[in-house]
Amino acid sequence: MSKQALHYLNENREQLLEKLNTFLSIPSVSTDSVHKKDIKEAAAYLESYLNDIGFDQVQQQDTGGHPLVYAEYNQAGPDAPTVLFYGHYDVQPVDPIDQWKSDPFKPEIRDGRLYARGSSDDKGQVFMHLAVFEAYMKTEGKLPINVKVCIEGEEEIGSENLYKVLHDKKEQFNADFAVISDSGMIAENQPTILYGLKGFTGIEINVTGPDHDLHSGMYGGAVRNPIMALNHILASMKDEDEVVTVDGFYDDVEPLSDNERELIKNVQGENYQESTGVQETASEKGYTAKEHTMARPTFEINGMYGGYQGEGTKTIIPSTATAKITCRLVPGQDPEKIQDLLEKHIHRAVPSGVTVDVKKEKLSARAYKVEPDSQLIKKAAESYTKAFGKETVYIRMGGSIPVVEWIEDIYHIPIVLLGFGTPDDRLHSPNESFPLDSFDKGMETLVHYWADLK
Amino acid sequence: MSKQALHYLNENREQLLEKLNTFLSIPSVSTDSVHKKDIKEAAAYLESYLNDIGFDQVQQQDTGGHPLVYAEYNQAGPDAPTVLFYGHYDVQPVDPIDQWKSDPFKPEIRDGRLYARGSSDDKGQVFMHLAVFEAYMKTEGKLPINVKVCIEGEEEIGSENLYKVLHDKKEQFNADFAVISDSGMIAENQPTILYGLKGFTGIEINVTGPDHDLHSGMYGGAVRNPIMALNHILASMKDEDEVVTVDGFYDDVEPLSDNERELIKNVQGENYQESTGVQETASEKGYTAKEHTMARPTFEINGMYGGYQGEGTKTIIPSTATAKITCRLVPGQDPEKIQDLLEKHIHRAVPSGVTVDVKKEKLSARAYKVEPDSQLIKKAAESYTKAFGKETVYIRMGGSIPVVEWIEDIYHIPIVLLGFGTPDDRLHSPNESFPLDSFDKGMETLVHYWADLK
Repeated sequence: MSKQALHYLNENREQLLEKLNTFLSIPSVSTDSVHKKDIKEAAAYLESYLNDIGFDQVQQQDTGGHPLVYAEYNQAGPDAPTVLFYGHYDVQPVDPIDQWKSDPFKPEIRDGRLYARGSSDDKGQVFMHLAVFEAYMKTEGKLPINVKVCIEGEEEIGSENLYKVLHDKKEQFNADFAVISDSGMIAENQPTILYGLKGFTGIEINVTGPDHDLHSGMYGGAVRNPIMALNHILASMKDEDEVVTVDGFYDDVEPLSDNERELIKNVQGENYQESTGVQETASEKGYTAKEHTMARPTFEINGMYGGYQGEGTKTIIPSTATAKITCRLVPGQDPEKIQDLLEKHIHRAVPSGVTVDVKKEKLSARAYKVEPDSQLIKKAAESYTKAFGKETVYIRMGGSIPVVEWIEDIYHIPIVLLGFGTPDDRLHSPNESFPLDSFDKGMETLVHYWADLK
Repeated sequence: MSKQALHYLNENREQLLEKLNTFLSIPSVSTDSVHKKDIKEAAAYLESYLNDIGFDQVQQQDTGGHPLVYAEYNQAGPDAPTVLFYGHYDVQPVDPIDQWKSDPFKPEIRDGRLYARGSSDDKGQVFMHLAVFEAYMKTEGKLPINVKVCIEGEEEIGSENLYKVLHDKKEQFNADFAVISDSGMIAENQPTILYGLKGFTGIEINVTGPDHDLHSGMYGGAVRNPIMALNHILASMKDEDEVVTVDGFYDDVEPLSDNERELIKNVQGENYQESTGVQETASEKGYTAKEHTMARPTFEINGMYGGYQGEGTKTIIPSTATAKITCRLVPGQDPEKIQDLLEKHIHRAVPSGVTVDVKKEKLSARAYKVEPDSQLIKKAAESYTKAFGKETVYIRMGGSIPVVEWIEDIYHIPIVLLGFGTPDDRLHSPNESFPLDSFDKGMETLVHYWADLK
């Protein structure tokens, strides 16, 4: 039966791409409150699309934050499995906007890639699922499986309200297994099953010195400079060997087995020079870049600011300095414990003459790992191979998807991570894009997968 | 003759303050190109005021940058000395604007202080000189001395074009001595003669890692974080004892004599807790806050930025990080040599995986010191005492006034620094202000000084 669905996707490719562009044109940036109405518009778009396809119970659920779009399909019959499909319709901010070659919210195709914020993370991949459901309904009048749709609008701000929803509405959302397409393949056209994800936690450090910016000539030599104080604190947290020097940071880290190091070695590595422009990689002493990104914890300063940033010079000693830090965690590490360790270290490291305030980010998740030999995973790998004509590889990734941890935690069901992104997609960066080839073969993969699970 | 001039200032105080407010209402910020037309307006204001007073040769001189206002008065006769009066009509930027209690360009009097950007640095003090000239002309029909007026519009951006003007137009600007009122008293109502100023130099450091912002999950562990790299570089330049750890930084520093340390000790110290809000001062190991600010070199980060600064979190590894640094220098230190030492240190300290670019600020000046026992200085001290009814103290200061070095360098004439600002003026900061008391007694000081020099 998958043939007709594939034929439909082929026949209607142009219309589907136009439909996708409409979706991508909505600037649904969740972290910035000025986009509240765009968030609503994106949710409304999904609601009407799901109604058109023929889903039941289509509804925007109030989460307390941005709405969650829910829908279900039960006509596949009692013998067919029920899948919980999760995705998100919110996107990252677009700054620095001047580095975009085309408007982030006016989708544009260049060299076989669709350029737009959200084209890969995650609107594009959400759309592929809906298009496949549409194809089945339009050709077969039904889907091979039962489906519960859960598309949230707060993933990029930590899915703040999702846990409560999944927890309180267990009855409604429960399923036999979950499928998430919010990740990538290790290379274009290389089918990839993600069997491990990193956890996540973050803090913000604010250092305050004088109660106002001071003239550096009148006060230089009398007061501590908050920016320099923050420099000393941060430099004491990770050394030049990329080793985190915070007491206890590595204590609970599940060691990397020789077996897994071998598996990682066999994964075709990314050409970092090409995808990032760096001449030389930098990784934790004793580990390769692949090992560090896939299976070792990280500590990154995502942003730092203080004092004068304008044209020319301004000879001041600034009043404050701020740094935003996030850590990616591996199995064994507890996010809250890591936050406590970071905070302790910072308070020990703060020099005299300034005060420091540590804000713990609510957004947090433990790392996740599945057994790669379950039937659901194997069939996913087979569907990939049918569509891409290539063997599927199994990898772990540095990214974090809090919902993965929560679904496991609350529903104890297997989770299949079917990602179609590529290393060149520039997620969270200017000029985010998604290959049309992944779009086509990804949908084909889904068509096969649903049919094989039937 | 000074009596009538003093009477005039008293009688016309309201009108003079209004005139000053008009001047302060012009947002003549020199570092930001959007204020170009305000700069022109401020220069035009001075031009017409000088014409009204009755100066000759009033003109806006093209410097290549912001115009310099020149004027002269030669009617005091051949026996009267000629003073070169220098000041500047440009002001510092006003950010962070939200911390101002009143509009920086709508002057407001609160508790005996005039609040406005430039009220102290330096429009307010420039105006006092013009008002005193006006008082003499309106009452005596002449000035006790010959005057050459030089008011520039680029002091806050390093007086970039002034050196060339002073050098090329030596004939026109030359005088018997120079008077500058662009500094402060160590305490309100404490007459203060500045006999030493610090030199000045600066650099900007740009660190570049990946050619675009990266997803911290996908690339954390593979590439060097430019912000952390910059933290390591900067933390290696000054230690927590406030000692600059750049090789050779102190090599040429003229040591502080016991005699001068004694003199500094006798100067009534500023209450830093009150004026800056810090609980505890931080100074170079082995020196007091007074010694460090007055007579030891400083190294300050004026601004630093990189990565995400918006609401919420953005899980990126940023592409670049930037820091703006300025140093205050003491007699013996050469600005260019210091820039070279900083640059060398930075290139030695840069870790693998990032590139660094060091931009040397053009703005530079050597430190300055005069002999406190010249007649010109003594008479200035006496005039202060007449007006303020208090003994004058002699101090050195951490501030830098490039023009002082240049006048000495080109004209070899004595320079008298008559400052009327106070430690609470918040120069370069939100809520800059100037005490009306300094305004009145400062003008009285000038009236006496010109009369005594006659």
